[in-house]
Amino acid sequence: MKIDVLTLFPEMFEGVFSSSILGKARDKGIVELNTVNFRNYANNKHNTVDDYPYGGGGGMVLKPEPIFGAVEDLPFVADAEGVPVKPRVILLCPQGETFTQKKAEELSTEQHLVFICGHYEGYDERIRQYLVTDELSVGDYVLTGGELPAMVVIDSVVRLLPGVLGNEMSAVTDSFSTGLLEYPHYTRPAKFRDWEVPDMLLSGHHENVRKWRARESLIRTLERRPDLLEGREFSKQEKAWLAEWEKEKAAKAKQAE
Amino acid sequence: MKIDVLTLFPEMFEGVFSSSILGKARDKGIVELNTVNFRNYANNKHNTVDDYPYGGGGGMVLKPEPIFGAVEDLPFVADAEGVPVKPRVILLCPQGETFTQKKAEELSTEQHLVFICGHYEGYDERIRQYLVTDELSVGDYVLTGGELPAMVVIDSVVRLLPGVLGNEMSAVTDSFSTGLLEYPHYTRPAKFRDWEVPDMLLSGHHENVRKWRARESLIRTLERRPDLLEGREFSKQEKAWLAEWEKEKAAKAKQAE
Repeated sequence: MKIDVLTLFPEMFEGVFSSSILGKARDKGIVELNTVNFRNYANNKHNTVDDYPYGGGGGMVLKPEPIFGAVEDLPFVADAEGVPVKPRVILLCPQGETFTQKKAEELSTEQHLVFICGHYEGYDERIRQYLVTDELSVGDYVLTGGELPAMVVIDSVVRLLPGVLGNEMSAVTDSFSTGLLEYPHYTRPAKFRDWEVPDMLLSGHHENVRKWRARESLIRTLERRPDLLEGREFSKQEKAWLAEWEKEKAAKAKQAE
Repeated sequence: MKIDVLTLFPEMFEGVFSSSILGKARDKGIVELNTVNFRNYANNKHNTVDDYPYGGGGGMVLKPEPIFGAVEDLPFVADAEGVPVKPRVILLCPQGETFTQKKAEELSTEQHLVFICGHYEGYDERIRQYLVTDELSVGDYVLTGGELPAMVVIDSVVRLLPGVLGNEMSAVTDSFSTGLLEYPHYTRPAKFRDWEVPDMLLSGHHENVRKWRARESLIRTLERRPDLLEGREFSKQEKAWLAEWEKEKAAKAKQAE
């Protein structure tokens, strides 16, 4: 996979692109990670990439020319038959589609991704309309620029590429593929200060451990993220756990009265 | 504000902490940004910070000692009266509360934030129960570690601190404070390739421009993020726009038949 990032702050990416999983994927040749400073495409004597908005108001707006110029100057990636592949051109912005694990999986099947990172400024609407294929938002909060969101999307996509993660890692991190939050984890020491690991996990009874974890996972999701359970078809066992949990809750509420 | 980040990959933060708004806030002395490698608190001869999970299964689990050790070794920040302030200790994890702009505003009133970034591994449950004050998730996708989420939260919080943003910047970026997505922006040239800026924005009629933008903002939110409109009390004008838009949509659907 080839990934190009258009940004005015390429130095923000250095540490992230060379460390950990992204660094390893790059060293193995699984992904090529480039940054392009689109100020080099400003094409005017002051090298400006933004300008005042038509219609007035505060803030600056990124001009179309440098962004179109930088994207159109990127070399195409060729597929197995040598045919050039059109890149997915992704704009990071609060107005975008909310990024999810499903979208990460979709993007991980592409051969060429281009990320456009604005900074403080808005984007000229013609960039969205005539250049960009996907607008993505990583969450409902305001950030200084598109750089951190681009890193987030890139990390989540690259870790899905074949050969990037060892099996031992992929196992832990599939929170959003099962549709439930993870159960609690414990490791040594069995007693840390006054706090002990639940007996069940020390029992060596594999089937009971499996059940305990499945129940904890379900209840944790119910308590913290009930929205993730909408539309879920519960198994008979899950229904029994939910009923049990409702009973416990009612008992506790009564005690508290 | 003082921010400490516990991580095994401090080099990931260098570029981000020294660029743009975070770099400027740091230079102005508005925020102090530190990284702590908690491997230095491993306290065992092989410097291991993780271990196998009790009860079996794949993946590794971060041990409690290095994390408790590193957090408890951080110097307290003193308030105006010289009294030590308890830090907010924030764990980045998919099981956390979904991070929002409201949470960013809440955290921006604190004096000392500590971020714990795990990497691949799970966290020993005792870290969550007895050390952490907030568990945050930046979105429903799987990342390699807590480092990028920590940067996201830090960026969104620091930009809210007094003196960090100039007025001209803060104006553009308040997407989530108005409850609506931003309207389309345009800047020069008025005609780029075949694509022209809407006449309205060139009219110089301020009141009409204001109305056009308010309507675009509302319709864009309705089309892209209807969930943001739940519970909104619409003004009379907004109701009229919505009715008009419904009519247009019906007309288009009829045309398409």
